[in-house]
Amino acid sequence: MTGFVSFVSSGPGDPELLTLKAVARLQAADVVLFDDLSSGPILAHAREGADLVGVGKRAGRLSPKQDHVSRLLVDYAQTGARVVRLKSGDSGMFGRLEEEITALRDAGISYEVIPGVSSAMAAAAAAGIPLTRRLTARRVQFVTGHDVTGSLPGDLNLAALADPSATTVIFMGKRTFPELAGLLIGAGLSPQTPALLAESVSTPAQKITRGTVGTMADLIASEAEDGPALILIGPLAE
Amino acid sequence: MTGFVSFVSSGPGDPELLTLKAVARLQAADVVLFDDLSSGPILAHAREGADLVGVGKRAGRLSPKQDHVSRLLVDYAQTGARVVRLKSGDSGMFGRLEEEITALRDAGISYEVIPGVSSAMAAAAAAGIPLTRRLTARRVQFVTGHDVTGSLPGDLNLAALADPSATTVIFMGKRTFPELAGLLIGAGLSPQTPALLAESVSTPAQKITRGTVGTMADLIASEAEDGPALILIGPLAE
Repeated sequence: MTGFVSFVSSGPGDPELLTLKAVARLQAADVVLFDDLSSGPILAHAREGADLVGVGKRAGRLSPKQDHVSRLLVDYAQTGARVVRLKSGDSGMFGRLEEEITALRDAGISYEVIPGVSSAMAAAAAAGIPLTRRLTARRVQFVTGHDVTGSLPGDLNLAALADPSATTVIFMGKRTFPELAGLLIGAGLSPQTPALLAESVSTPAQKITRGTVGTMADLIASEAEDGPALILIGPLAE
Repeated sequence: MTGFVSFVSSGPGDPELLTLKAVARLQAADVVLFDDLSSGPILAHAREGADLVGVGKRAGRLSPKQDHVSRLLVDYAQTGARVVRLKSGDSGMFGRLEEEITALRDAGISYEVIPGVSSAMAAAAAAGIPLTRRLTARRVQFVTGHDVTGSLPGDLNLAALADPSATTVIFMGKRTFPELAGLLIGAGLSPQTPALLAESVSTPAQKITRGTVGTMADLIASEAEDGPALILIGPLAE
């Protein structure tokens, strides 16, 4: 008797940005494994009696190791349960989905992935801007601002990132942005390039701060907000 | 008396991939301007009596010019109506959102943007793969396969696109893919790089075809499907 795992994208934070399919999977779940960013109103869609298991990496408590999360997923599924693995934003983006999929495949457990609203799209929407522009912003790229050690990744493609005609969205990159901005400017990107800091997007704590690649490091240093943050760079980030 | 325009992302096609907020805006709308990809079940959320206005660019009939769509948006809003502008996928991605926003700003009409599930995220989910991988696929990029004339854009950043450690998603790029593949291979990308063609994602006509950058052009030539298509390239597209 083998269960089934639905990887469900919970979106950027606003419970109204859940998809109808995400709600349906939550309502049908026996077990929900959730990250810290999947908040109360989102979990409230689960039926009474469902097991709600927090496996978040934030909130100051001890962080379960990734292989522990994968083992929990497999263990719950092997009881025959319908398991929902909630992941914030879109589950396929910077969320270690692959490690969990690999664990399920190794254990012979079926799964599905329900796509969702990425916080990158939500950040642009909150700022009232598109991510692309005909002729001048035809490429959009998403990168993470830190590697497993917390440092700026060492193998950045600067020719890609310093392209003035791309829109770049940096996930989890607030702390390393001063270093990244220096690299981008060194690679030829104008310090005047518009930049936008989007924090706690789509939640009541949402804050949008506009600047440039040259000024954003100081803007980041001058504020204390500690929620999830994205930085958008490019001609449209004005 | 000025109305209000909600740009509502309708997602990749599956009506269940609408967000709760998109449904709420549709239910409250006096007028819905929709593209061809926003199908019947999605429009069925509009209340009885709402005006449903097709402004699609496909389906074989005469395509309204972009400035005509913008004028319609302004005209409807100026009647005081609550207008929903439905856009397939995420409205900020390759959907000419900027032109329509500019027209509203020029006319002094307020608007909001409701983000949605991009067809890129839906394509990866349908294939059961993530878009990112720790260490080996830390950058994701989205490009369009044709410019306003229908040709491959002339100013492609090949250093960005031929990067073997990125996941690249090409929108509307089926016809120009043979030319693009040649450029990518010429720029050093291995022809063995996995590639995946995702057609009519999340609809009953969905079709996923796997190949490589070297073989995908032939795979495209050998099939007749004419729905919307994305091509994913990169280590995760296996």
